[in-house]
Amino acid sequence: MTKHSFTIPRSVEWKETYISLLDQQKLPGITEYIELNSIQEVWHAIQTLKVRGAPAIGIAAAFGLALSASRYGESDINSFLAKLHEEKDYLAGSRPTAVNLAWALNRLTASCSQVKSVNEAKTNLIHEAIQIQVEDGETCRQIGQHALKLFNKSDRIMTICNAGSIATARYGTALAPFYLAKEQDFPLQVYACETRPVLQGARLTAWELMQAGVDVTLITDNMAAFTIQQKNISAIITGADRIARNGDTANKIGTYNLAILAKAFEIPFYIAAPLSTFDFSIDSGAEIPIEERDSREITEIAGTRIAPEGIEVYNPAFDVTPADLISGIVTEKGVLTGDLKAGIKELFADKVR
Amino acid sequence: MTKHSFTIPRSVEWKETYISLLDQQKLPGITEYIELNSIQEVWHAIQTLKVRGAPAIGIAAAFGLALSASRYGESDINSFLAKLHEEKDYLAGSRPTAVNLAWALNRLTASCSQVKSVNEAKTNLIHEAIQIQVEDGETCRQIGQHALKLFNKSDRIMTICNAGSIATARYGTALAPFYLAKEQDFPLQVYACETRPVLQGARLTAWELMQAGVDVTLITDNMAAFTIQQKNISAIITGADRIARNGDTANKIGTYNLAILAKAFEIPFYIAAPLSTFDFSIDSGAEIPIEERDSREITEIAGTRIAPEGIEVYNPAFDVTPADLISGIVTEKGVLTGDLKAGIKELFADKVR
Repeated sequence: MTKHSFTIPRSVEWKETYISLLDQQKLPGITEYIELNSIQEVWHAIQTLKVRGAPAIGIAAAFGLALSASRYGESDINSFLAKLHEEKDYLAGSRPTAVNLAWALNRLTASCSQVKSVNEAKTNLIHEAIQIQVEDGETCRQIGQHALKLFNKSDRIMTICNAGSIATARYGTALAPFYLAKEQDFPLQVYACETRPVLQGARLTAWELMQAGVDVTLITDNMAAFTIQQKNISAIITGADRIARNGDTANKIGTYNLAILAKAFEIPFYIAAPLSTFDFSIDSGAEIPIEERDSREITEIAGTRIAPEGIEVYNPAFDVTPADLISGIVTEKGVLTGDLKAGIKELFADKVR
Repeated sequence: MTKHSFTIPRSVEWKETYISLLDQQKLPGITEYIELNSIQEVWHAIQTLKVRGAPAIGIAAAFGLALSASRYGESDINSFLAKLHEEKDYLAGSRPTAVNLAWALNRLTASCSQVKSVNEAKTNLIHEAIQIQVEDGETCRQIGQHALKLFNKSDRIMTICNAGSIATARYGTALAPFYLAKEQDFPLQVYACETRPVLQGARLTAWELMQAGVDVTLITDNMAAFTIQQKNISAIITGADRIARNGDTANKIGTYNLAILAKAFEIPFYIAAPLSTFDFSIDSGAEIPIEERDSREITEIAGTRIAPEGIEVYNPAFDVTPADLISGIVTEKGVLTGDLKAGIKELFADKVR
């Protein structure tokens, strides 16, 4: 073969009789797709972080419930639905704080609310699960299309963490424009920050962009300023965990650093996230609680201790980038710029009313 | 014992019949002082980075040459000096690019330029080697005293890399104020950035400050912005590898990031460095060549691969912070502020004339 064939990796795929799942815990050393054959295996895969990223978790759970229900022996619809709800609750407990998980499972049970027969229910569940994946893939593609318009040919773009294909149905959010650019032969270069402490940039983003043949260069997080200057970075784009009504954005630790650097170097800083990321219950980032994680994420890497025993550690999992540092928020509906608070209000006008 | 006893670790010590050297390669897991008994052992210790930091390397080499010469059997001064120069050249080859190494060895041979006897030469060499260490310790103490005046009680100060005691005779440069504060019961809190890729902050700075009982907290480099905001960091101080005539400063990669963050948060950013760090041969940082290091420093940690095989990597060893982001440069002669270019010119007025 003289020509490489590249593919955008997928985290989860429906295979009729089983679910194919990329084991993200083994990346980047080993690329292994495992077969999940039961709801217990799906529960375990979610619980042990073999699948990560809110949309991908939701899709895996939906497939898991649909697969399991397709094998129920019950012929009575009420018995069927009772068992379905029982297994739904079981699966929802695999990661209780994952909002997308509960949301996806609720969509599945809701798809059976009007059914008359077990066969109809089984069909609906599979269709609904696939529909969740299709919708998420479409959302990501739209985000990618809107984001790609922000870039010029041969731009060099920086990102952090993994807002990528394997965290979603496909394409990802912040990484979506790079896949669409690749599909369209639109040259872009990506600079991926390794993203300490958990190294999602080094382990996942670098890996998945390479799989798709995207031109990607890995740097450590503290190289960002010098890289922006030396490599003429054109823009920075990241995902988001939560966006407040005023546009303040919580995302992986290090995002705030990059937003400040972007302003200092007078390059745009973009957030890419679906509408589901906006949280109308909070007015600003000040209301977002800060999760601090185990100190061993910092003091150990791959099981090797790199810092002295007993050292004090500060390990916030994410930071909050103030809206005034954000040049634009890319959603499936387009790009919000300027007054983000007003833009967000308008975008959700229907919802708010 | 109810009271902990703390000591500022030293990298190198003269023990009359041998040299005691802290094996920095084994930190922070193992604290081991090795005995160097021959010039070959000193050469090997320098070459394998058991000792690092320009001043510490110079001191180790000076001790090594003085120790070896003290055992020469030659009774004729000319034979003695011939052997001394031969061993000096050998030792200088242990790390050919280390300027301090050649400088220290030259001081030793110069101390014998007027001697009449072998005994006088042996005495001079030992005195000169010890004098180099004493002078460096005094320089560091003066830097620490000047820097400490820039801080208030209970300030929280951020630093990167290891401009510390074990890189010098004692005290270090950027870390010197923290040791003096500890000695004076002046409370300060230090936030140490881990300093990827080689992790000098996690491995060395965290370790040596802990040894001395200094209050130190470790963070990853990308946590800097959020930590400055959440922990009310008062100032940032770092060492320097090279300072140009205009004040532009080359230092460990990540320093430039911190300088930009300091400006954004309106806190001072200081450089601490001895006068020997200034390079009058360059007008600005633009003339400083950028050393790029082995990609495995990024793709592997402690022998474990953390990034995909074949990934493109950018690994600059240092960056250049523009003078206009530097609030002050602390030397043994005091603190330069304001127009750094004019201040540097004035400071070196004698030298320039």
